[in-house]
Amino acid sequence: MLYNPFSKGSTKLRLEVQYLMNKIPVSKEILDTIFEETGYNPNNLSIRETNRLATLISKRGEFDFVRMEMGIPNLPTPDIAKKAEKEAIDRGLQGIYPPFDGIPELKLAGSKFVKAFLNMNVEPEHVIPTCGSLQGGYISQALAGNMHKGKDTILYLDPTFPVTRYQAKFLGLKSEGIELYDNRGKKLLEAIEQKISKGNVGGLLWSSPNNPSWSCLNENELKGIAEICDKNDILAIEDLAYLGMDFRKDYSEPNAEPYIPTVGKFGKNWVTLISASKAFSFPGPRCGLAIISPRLNKQEFTQLEEFCGRKRFGHAFSLGGLYVTTSGTSHTAQFALTEMLNKSTKGEYNFIEVTKAYGERARKVREIFLNYGFKQVYEKDMDETVGDGFYLTMSYPGYDGTNLMLELMKYGISTITLKSTGSNRHEGLRVCISFVNENDMPVLNDRLKKFMENNK
Amino acid sequence: MLYNPFSKGSTKLRLEVQYLMNKIPVSKEILDTIFEETGYNPNNLSIRETNRLATLISKRGEFDFVRMEMGIPNLPTPDIAKKAEKEAIDRGLQGIYPPFDGIPELKLAGSKFVKAFLNMNVEPEHVIPTCGSLQGGYISQALAGNMHKGKDTILYLDPTFPVTRYQAKFLGLKSEGIELYDNRGKKLLEAIEQKISKGNVGGLLWSSPNNPSWSCLNENELKGIAEICDKNDILAIEDLAYLGMDFRKDYSEPNAEPYIPTVGKFGKNWVTLISASKAFSFPGPRCGLAIISPRLNKQEFTQLEEFCGRKRFGHAFSLGGLYVTTSGTSHTAQFALTEMLNKSTKGEYNFIEVTKAYGERARKVREIFLNYGFKQVYEKDMDETVGDGFYLTMSYPGYDGTNLMLELMKYGISTITLKSTGSNRHEGLRVCISFVNENDMPVLNDRLKKFMENNK
Repeated sequence: MLYNPFSKGSTKLRLEVQYLMNKIPVSKEILDTIFEETGYNPNNLSIRETNRLATLISKRGEFDFVRMEMGIPNLPTPDIAKKAEKEAIDRGLQGIYPPFDGIPELKLAGSKFVKAFLNMNVEPEHVIPTCGSLQGGYISQALAGNMHKGKDTILYLDPTFPVTRYQAKFLGLKSEGIELYDNRGKKLLEAIEQKISKGNVGGLLWSSPNNPSWSCLNENELKGIAEICDKNDILAIEDLAYLGMDFRKDYSEPNAEPYIPTVGKFGKNWVTLISASKAFSFPGPRCGLAIISPRLNKQEFTQLEEFCGRKRFGHAFSLGGLYVTTSGTSHTAQFALTEMLNKSTKGEYNFIEVTKAYGERARKVREIFLNYGFKQVYEKDMDETVGDGFYLTMSYPGYDGTNLMLELMKYGISTITLKSTGSNRHEGLRVCISFVNENDMPVLNDRLKKFMENNK
Repeated sequence: MLYNPFSKGSTKLRLEVQYLMNKIPVSKEILDTIFEETGYNPNNLSIRETNRLATLISKRGEFDFVRMEMGIPNLPTPDIAKKAEKEAIDRGLQGIYPPFDGIPELKLAGSKFVKAFLNMNVEPEHVIPTCGSLQGGYISQALAGNMHKGKDTILYLDPTFPVTRYQAKFLGLKSEGIELYDNRGKKLLEAIEQKISKGNVGGLLWSSPNNPSWSCLNENELKGIAEICDKNDILAIEDLAYLGMDFRKDYSEPNAEPYIPTVGKFGKNWVTLISASKAFSFPGPRCGLAIISPRLNKQEFTQLEEFCGRKRFGHAFSLGGLYVTTSGTSHTAQFALTEMLNKSTKGEYNFIEVTKAYGERARKVREIFLNYGFKQVYEKDMDETVGDGFYLTMSYPGYDGTNLMLELMKYGISTITLKSTGSNRHEGLRVCISFVNENDMPVLNDRLKKFMENNK
């Protein structure tokens, strides 16, 4: 039942390409039957259902899909991480609770890492390992929505990672959104000012690069956001899930310009979430970092004491939220992440260079789509061309997103709609390139070519 | 900064015993100075503060403490777990997200394990790996307090693991308690009926064996609880943190009487939490199991849909709570737990026999305390003598719990008060035996002897 991304042999592939042309597109009848059998609603498919659907069509049609629906990493974990975690296991650390605010080694490594690559000045105490940066987002939202009376709404810069909105819901918080693509620069700051004017917003959450538009907030925007948040007692929650993956700039050298942009360089009301899933190909252990603003960390809030028995923000985060949800994250995995961060900081492991493989895949996939009449939905990042990263956003003339997604399914290509990611660009699809390997490229090419021939 | 429980050499120890007698008890002045420096409140110490205090006195007094304040496991993780997790790492599974409702192997192993040792009949789909059984308790309480309108209170059988109450607070739920020691058998069921009569209780949570009284609910009590919960739409949350550690019975043979008692054999509204921390000496990876009642799993609740967008209980647990808090638990650790469960079920690894070491330590520590005039606070488990397990509860004539705890600190013995565990027996202490090794026994003996001499 495991993903086995590296197994597609080229011999099998060549055979596949030969007979594929007679099998795709699968008929509407087959698709209808599968929808009838599963009971899925074609207008409201979850990623998981899309995934299942692709598997069923794949079986029925006897061909492999080009899988682009899941936003999951697909590069091997570096050997240094394997070695470090195995050593920690040999030292018996499966048998000992992790300190719930993280092992000192990782807290120190994290503080040096964010100095080297984000030019942030924080102490080890401000670095809290969490069960994936996702847990850091959960706890941050919990605190954001409960630290000031009446400020129980989280504002998102859309499109956004859908789980962040589910988190707010589970926490009993309300949510609002601003479409990032229509609002950049000064216009973005104005839109935020307008949205928060009712005084009910406790947190502002965004991901940069953005999933899936790949827009990246620039330093002026981050500075403006920090000012707004500080002035209005709003917690800025910055999700760096795709750390350093704006490959238009070279962030690979530690302790040197350019640095990865972060809200952490401005203002005081922020938490920055550092994910290891993509940047370090380390999604399995659920181990990321939350970096808490030093000034916020020691600040005290009467409302937080009422909410979780801890007045000080830093205590509310670790002794409040982290302690009650999981009491820390894997002891042995923390040593693996420590090693990867330390080696990166010393310039001995180049995590940017490794993840560039994604950018390269995106470039090739983008060219194939554009060759066959597709349009890139989010093609600009302010005045610049958007970078090639982990996702592409595509549309085709005459189709809305849902119909295009279903039609491509018939051709053995799985994607999700932009609508389902909270985007207002309902004509488009989110295309994740992580599982498209070299052998898939000619298959994708043939299938899209056929799609275009049938849609002239 | 790691605990290093196995390092006390006997040579060092013998030296220590020689000069100790001149150093303890440390003076009241030293203790006062330390309280002044730390700012701690002696009447309201957290476990963490007690731990820190012991370290400070230890440094000042230049002697090692007999550490009994932390309820943390202290047996080496079995080699089969090390091997299995290292193999999973070698297979590259740090690089792949875990399925967030658990790897199929562990779900299957869990269902066989609870059949073999608890005589429970569940399918793999009812077994959900979580980041420690603690996360299972968090999610269970979240659902319990939100699945029926107006039932937003969790009822605990006290004393209880303090974190469970903090969880309810973080979730915005109310809590009430029943002192278990005063209420057993028919009286317990009556006390529960009385407490729930207002209709505001959504969940009933207990741990068996109980932390720290080591009381164990019997099958009649569990059956009665199940009936009350089913009749009144209350979720029974059973915390088996110390699985099988009632050593008065021999639970070591799989698929044979006696079975470990569980609410899961009765009724339908229950979640049973299986911790691997103590039973499998596996606290580091944060990996436990939640077993969801098959009948409850597929039941639908309008209120849950409103709460977290999922109507079906099982979906609300995994796609609701688990997904938004951590999106699953360590991929590689799940293979280690799978291996330990499978080997146990096959009778190839005897986890009961291994954890009996704790019972043996408890017996020796108990005898030393009783020799020197201490009384066992919770000495009965209904009509039987309570078993020797992970904790002891002790008092000394003429002392209340806080003063006794502080006085023992001067003798290099750290414990916590029963009051701080939610017990109404304010005269007593909770004594955790996990870190008391063979070399500590004579030290403990000498110190308590001296304590008695000074308190005649």
